[in-house]
Amino acid sequence: MQPYALTVDKFLDHAAKWAGDREVVTGEAGRAARRIGYAALRARSNRASGALAALGLRFGDRVGTLAWNTQHHLEIYYAAMGAGLVCHTLNPRLTAAHLAAMINEAENRALAVASNLMPLLAQVAPQCPTLKHVILLDGDGPASEALEGSGARLWSYEALLSVHGSAFAWGGFDEESPAGLCYTSGTSGSPKGVLYTHRSNYLHTLRSLQAEAFALTRGDVLLVAVPMFHANGWGLPFAAPAVGAKLVLPGRHLDGASLAKLMRDEEVTVAAGVQTVWLGVAEHLEATGEDLPALKRVIIGGSSCPDAQLRRLEQRLGVCVQRTWGMTELSPLGTVAAPDAPADRKGASGRPLLGLDLKLTDAAGATLPRQRGVVGRLKVKGPSVVDRYFKAEAEALDPEGYFDTGDLARIDEAGNLTICGRAKDLIKSGGEWINPSEIADIVGRDPTVGQVAVIARADPKWGERPVLVVEARAGESIDERALLDGLRGKVADWWLPDEVVRIDTMPLAATGKIDKARLETDYAEGRLGGAVGREEGVGAR
Amino acid sequence: MQPYALTVDKFLDHAAKWAGDREVVTGEAGRAARRIGYAALRARSNRASGALAALGLRFGDRVGTLAWNTQHHLEIYYAAMGAGLVCHTLNPRLTAAHLAAMINEAENRALAVASNLMPLLAQVAPQCPTLKHVILLDGDGPASEALEGSGARLWSYEALLSVHGSAFAWGGFDEESPAGLCYTSGTSGSPKGVLYTHRSNYLHTLRSLQAEAFALTRGDVLLVAVPMFHANGWGLPFAAPAVGAKLVLPGRHLDGASLAKLMRDEEVTVAAGVQTVWLGVAEHLEATGEDLPALKRVIIGGSSCPDAQLRRLEQRLGVCVQRTWGMTELSPLGTVAAPDAPADRKGASGRPLLGLDLKLTDAAGATLPRQRGVVGRLKVKGPSVVDRYFKAEAEALDPEGYFDTGDLARIDEAGNLTICGRAKDLIKSGGEWINPSEIADIVGRDPTVGQVAVIARADPKWGERPVLVVEARAGESIDERALLDGLRGKVADWWLPDEVVRIDTMPLAATGKIDKARLETDYAEGRLGGAVGREEGVGAR
Repeated sequence: MQPYALTVDKFLDHAAKWAGDREVVTGEAGRAARRIGYAALRARSNRASGALAALGLRFGDRVGTLAWNTQHHLEIYYAAMGAGLVCHTLNPRLTAAHLAAMINEAENRALAVASNLMPLLAQVAPQCPTLKHVILLDGDGPASEALEGSGARLWSYEALLSVHGSAFAWGGFDEESPAGLCYTSGTSGSPKGVLYTHRSNYLHTLRSLQAEAFALTRGDVLLVAVPMFHANGWGLPFAAPAVGAKLVLPGRHLDGASLAKLMRDEEVTVAAGVQTVWLGVAEHLEATGEDLPALKRVIIGGSSCPDAQLRRLEQRLGVCVQRTWGMTELSPLGTVAAPDAPADRKGASGRPLLGLDLKLTDAAGATLPRQRGVVGRLKVKGPSVVDRYFKAEAEALDPEGYFDTGDLARIDEAGNLTICGRAKDLIKSGGEWINPSEIADIVGRDPTVGQVAVIARADPKWGERPVLVVEARAGESIDERALLDGLRGKVADWWLPDEVVRIDTMPLAATGKIDKARLETDYAEGRLGGAVGREEGVGAR
Repeated sequence: MQPYALTVDKFLDHAAKWAGDREVVTGEAGRAARRIGYAALRARSNRASGALAALGLRFGDRVGTLAWNTQHHLEIYYAAMGAGLVCHTLNPRLTAAHLAAMINEAENRALAVASNLMPLLAQVAPQCPTLKHVILLDGDGPASEALEGSGARLWSYEALLSVHGSAFAWGGFDEESPAGLCYTSGTSGSPKGVLYTHRSNYLHTLRSLQAEAFALTRGDVLLVAVPMFHANGWGLPFAAPAVGAKLVLPGRHLDGASLAKLMRDEEVTVAAGVQTVWLGVAEHLEATGEDLPALKRVIIGGSSCPDAQLRRLEQRLGVCVQRTWGMTELSPLGTVAAPDAPADRKGASGRPLLGLDLKLTDAAGATLPRQRGVVGRLKVKGPSVVDRYFKAEAEALDPEGYFDTGDLARIDEAGNLTICGRAKDLIKSGGEWINPSEIADIVGRDPTVGQVAVIARADPKWGERPVLVVEARAGESIDERALLDGLRGKVADWWLPDEVVRIDTMPLAATGKIDKARLETDYAEGRLGGAVGREEGVGAR
């Protein structure tokens, strides 16, 4: 059969040829600030490849991005990957020191930045000796100038395209070539780089497009509210052009009002993002009485979403909500609940699709004799799963070639996966394990509770003890005693948290996950107030 | 990222692990004669690999099949491919001489045969010196005996499994390894072998599973009425286990009554086959007043289906009909109309999905400057498209790497493909081209017409002239004059057929396509009767 390298430039080529007029729309605070057809976007992106080559970048060089979900960011994605460069997406919510460490480890030679992130980049660039070119994606300014305090030159993207843009022959290299680089979020452990290949991204895209997964078609209008800087934006910047779906990129503003306006104006049919984003949209709709008649499905991921919250979301948005589970190391899609999954989901994130295999092991790595209905350590295998971290010497795989997710999980008889928490989040109390996710899941069903986390506090007698941290839903007030009473009989008595801490705003990491590491530090350093349990001794121990 | 060879054994592995209880049902004259879960089928098929190895077959050896759509045939598919052997599907409707020529070119060392095809095989085997083992899939008999008149040994499949079956480690070879061999139908030219690879089949499967194509899910019940011996059964024996869909294989009997009963009993949701099969089902339903409440979609292909006939089918079956276009050389899916394609299709077979690119050229092979809205010669490119025929020395590709389909086609502004006929079917009359497909398409809309073909007859003055051949719909009688009148004004006067020939039963090739070569031979040799036009001089010339 014909040779055909599985490279990601083919996604945009396909869209340009077969859906050339379908649009990529960029939002700005809910307004459609910019729109372009795939054919024109492909032409610009391809010329940007020529410009990157003119700056001296060569096959395999890393190009950083520090940007929101915008057309320009998408153009740099394909400009870099199509030319055989590596698109290294950086998270603007990290500190300058973290960013500099990643840029230096990746030896980025160029970096594309959103103008409103220039103040951050100005702190970062002086610490990054390999950085020779900074491309200002959306700002005015001279064609190029020296970037103060660093060895890099600052380019205006449009001027760079005018001066150095030229047609570039995309692809033509091996499909195992690196395409993207993304660091893990670091909410559990220090960030590690995952180097995606063209092949891994291509196969991930085909997997995600199945009717039981994202099921996108050319008729769809897809809102990507998950950041493009995080884990390939769940692969959606590939999946949308691969089918020629209209793509809506919301820019920086992910508040409920902005998203709702953009979704209504652009007639979004499928939307993807973390649950906190959809809670914001749902609350906005509830407050204003507006609706989103075109919306059919919402895809959530990034953190667990209790059944009760999922049902509330479905009711408020009036659509099907698909729960997913994934990781940066998985490109990132692991499992996804089918659009027609039954309503009684029991926390499940769906079944694995062809191309991702799962197994459960014990803590020592031995495959559990029973794989269904028991909790085990989740390991995964597939063509879009990491085998070793960027610049790591050792493989991250077990002897059977599986990657250890670090998650605890249960698989039901029908094959549906439920993540039961992080193995390393387990709280060891009196020599026994407490699973904070099980506690949080039960508390999360209480209608007064918005966000919930269960953290560990050091305890001189028991080693560790659980602490419940809750944020109330808007307009609700929380009865701590009732929350603890609600746990009795559902978890062992000695699992009952020693304290309940109310906070106004749950700290979230850049990806929307609750930042448990920060909660634990804040708690340890006395910065979390409102403890109710300790005074009253409601804890079982 | 992790190494992971794209080999087809992974489809059945996936089904066995994640949909082990979903069934593969084999029909026999409409009755479910046999059913098995994917886990048990995988175990049998894997043991059959061990048996083939025990018979001395080695990586790359060809295993023929001469069988209907049955569980046993499916087991041999995976037994051969999983073990690195090549599954060479043979068409039982070919002559013994044709079959022997294919078996000899392919140097088949073993062949699996349905018991009711043994009389045919008994004629074939003595002509095939490479054939050492014949496996009787579903018959009784001794474990093994000499096959009379040939050098081969005849095995009973179940006995072979008992005696030589053993677990076999599937896969582990390069994904570019050959997996299957199928000869083109030969309705237009002599049969040529197409050698599929594991990679081409794997990527074809992922392409076909997209929401805009076959869109299969685990909840579906798929009836495969297209023969498994023809072009991978449209890839469905791969696609169904790849998602864990229940699979219904109808055996030999494809009449309307048998299929309708099987579909109703097994609650088939998606069904695939040529249009003549669905006409039979529709007529049965009409005659009996039965319905198929579970059926959602019917996928048709193999020959063009005029809009009027498609609408009739949709009305009678009460479902969406998806028109497809494909070829043996394309694995075989080319384009497919989306399930939600608009009703006014104008003959289109849908858009190409990622992984198949199209271009239109002139007769000399030059790319047409306009690719939309004009008729050109269709060429295709992709990882599941042939690059050279089996044992051919020359590549079958143009300098840009495209395969010439031999079809004439038009692509509309939205990218929908309409096949306008075979380039070699064009009738050259007075130095100008007549397209028989356009004429047939118009005539096919007449409610009295069941099947229609336009063939060429040699003409001393004009070179060739068109002849219309029609079969009436059941219970209808055809007015030839009215048919010709219906063409006036819609085609050029000199395109009007010189004659109209009524026949009782249109000759069909094994794949359900009208056998035009046979019609033309029969006509030339005076075996087609009922000519009306010639006597009356209705032709324009």
